[in-house]
Amino acid sequence: MNGTQKNYDIVIIGGGPAGLSAGIYTARARMASLCVEQGVVGGQIINTEWVENYPGFAETVSGIDLTMAMHKQAEKFGMETLIAGVTGLDVNDKGFTVKTSGDDIAAKAVIIAGGSERQKLGVPGEAEYTGKGVSYCATCDGAFFRDKAVAVVGGGNAAITEALELTKFASKISIVHRRDELRATKILQEKAFAEPKIEVLWDSVVEEITGDTFVNGIKLRNVKTDEKSAVDVSGVFMSVGFKPNTAYLKGVVEMDAAGSVVVNEKMETSVPGLYAAGDIRSNSIRQVIAAAGDGAIAAVNAEKFVSG
Amino acid sequence: MNGTQKNYDIVIIGGGPAGLSAGIYTARARMASLCVEQGVVGGQIINTEWVENYPGFAETVSGIDLTMAMHKQAEKFGMETLIAGVTGLDVNDKGFTVKTSGDDIAAKAVIIAGGSERQKLGVPGEAEYTGKGVSYCATCDGAFFRDKAVAVVGGGNAAITEALELTKFASKISIVHRRDELRATKILQEKAFAEPKIEVLWDSVVEEITGDTFVNGIKLRNVKTDEKSAVDVSGVFMSVGFKPNTAYLKGVVEMDAAGSVVVNEKMETSVPGLYAAGDIRSNSIRQVIAAAGDGAIAAVNAEKFVSG
Repeated sequence: MNGTQKNYDIVIIGGGPAGLSAGIYTARARMASLCVEQGVVGGQIINTEWVENYPGFAETVSGIDLTMAMHKQAEKFGMETLIAGVTGLDVNDKGFTVKTSGDDIAAKAVIIAGGSERQKLGVPGEAEYTGKGVSYCATCDGAFFRDKAVAVVGGGNAAITEALELTKFASKISIVHRRDELRATKILQEKAFAEPKIEVLWDSVVEEITGDTFVNGIKLRNVKTDEKSAVDVSGVFMSVGFKPNTAYLKGVVEMDAAGSVVVNEKMETSVPGLYAAGDIRSNSIRQVIAAAGDGAIAAVNAEKFVSG
Repeated sequence: MNGTQKNYDIVIIGGGPAGLSAGIYTARARMASLCVEQGVVGGQIINTEWVENYPGFAETVSGIDLTMAMHKQAEKFGMETLIAGVTGLDVNDKGFTVKTSGDDIAAKAVIIAGGSERQKLGVPGEAEYTGKGVSYCATCDGAFFRDKAVAVVGGGNAAITEALELTKFASKISIVHRRDELRATKILQEKAFAEPKIEVLWDSVVEEITGDTFVNGIKLRNVKTDEKSAVDVSGVFMSVGFKPNTAYLKGVVEMDAAGSVVVNEKMETSVPGLYAAGDIRSNSIRQVIAAAGDGAIAAVNAEKFVSG
């Protein structure tokens, strides 16, 4: 809290692309701005080695370089950063009180940009072997599985990207998908189907992760035939979706069935002065450029709200 | 039209940041994608010498470098570009027909990203002296007014940015604003008020632009006192707002009072399969990052629409 005041015009919850983009805009508009981040500034994208679809970089850029540049921009314009967890949000007649693991912070407007976290599968062995073969991030852990067989659970863009990433290390990658076609975009599907190391186990769900000290296999069930099978693998990478980080927002703001914060095209929520941006908002496309765009939109509208 | 087919999955109308970002996403998703641009690829931002608030560039980047990189990205993934004006948009049972100054083009989904153009003031002398002292772009024309007195009409971010840009050339800049405070963000206001070459003529409207071969002055009226006055200037820079480029969309899609295309947070319009992104959509904040974010959001949702 060194040097950090406790009253701000705008508090931004979350230091990923949505929050940092919001901070660039609020700070540049001379709003006293604080970004509260519970972990490491940058968001999930810092785990992505290369980003090729952030408009403006004709060559690829690393996730960490991209977000570090955003943080530098926001701080250059005067945004402050506080590393603390957010535990609650009170709406009162003066605006908002953001409750953190440190001090409470008053704000005239708040931008919720806390993103989401990877969904757990919830099967036996998952918790037990997390860090011992069960992983949620191929970029982080892929290199531990050199010349070994691994499984990737899921069928969306993230799962296929994980599988492709793993071809650098693993000898074989089995994608376990509960449906008979992938949700991933076609370019990723084409890449995966062209890759001899990758096989797809269709219509299959993981029922258990087995092991001794480390993972040694997965037990599967075919959802159409009910047939059971087992696959020997040394690693299991989970890519089964995301859960918005909205635990502290229950009863405060309108959320959709997935637990995302409902917004309109101005990033306004159901509470005046409260905005949401990025992966945490309704119908997010989960892309860095969209998060950054959302952040700027939330910021400009929050600035107008505060300026009256 | 050399090599350009006439049936596409997705046609993007407009080649600014919103359209190019959309193209990066639709082409990367292996959708046959065509971007139709009536003038020069890049959009209005190519007239901006420096952009310091596009997240990801810790140092400033020029508007033209930014959009040229976006165009290169989109074409790398397979987006095609057609230089033609769009004259109409038909909705039919197969999707859409985009009518252009060249051929008609069929599309399964369309993303409207044609931006907006600078509003005219509509006073005597404006049309007559356009290009002879009346300008809509300080970056383009400022250098013609070295050591001369000029006026800037407007009070928003664009107007103040224009005035600051003109301090490089002009000897004096009179900002003519119809209200008693500026709409521009505080950081820009502070810069303007600190600049000795800049004065603000409050509560004033331009009634006429005078001249002989070139502009030699403006006639003003104070809206509070009704007092008339005249100021000798060699140039008048108009920054009085923007008009969305939606002439061909009347009766096709829902628009708001300002003529912008109404969208929700998915960039869906009132017509299924028709999306809008960037400065042309309702409640746009008119910023490059927001346009690029919108474009990606429209693209991902258009891809889902086409894929069924």
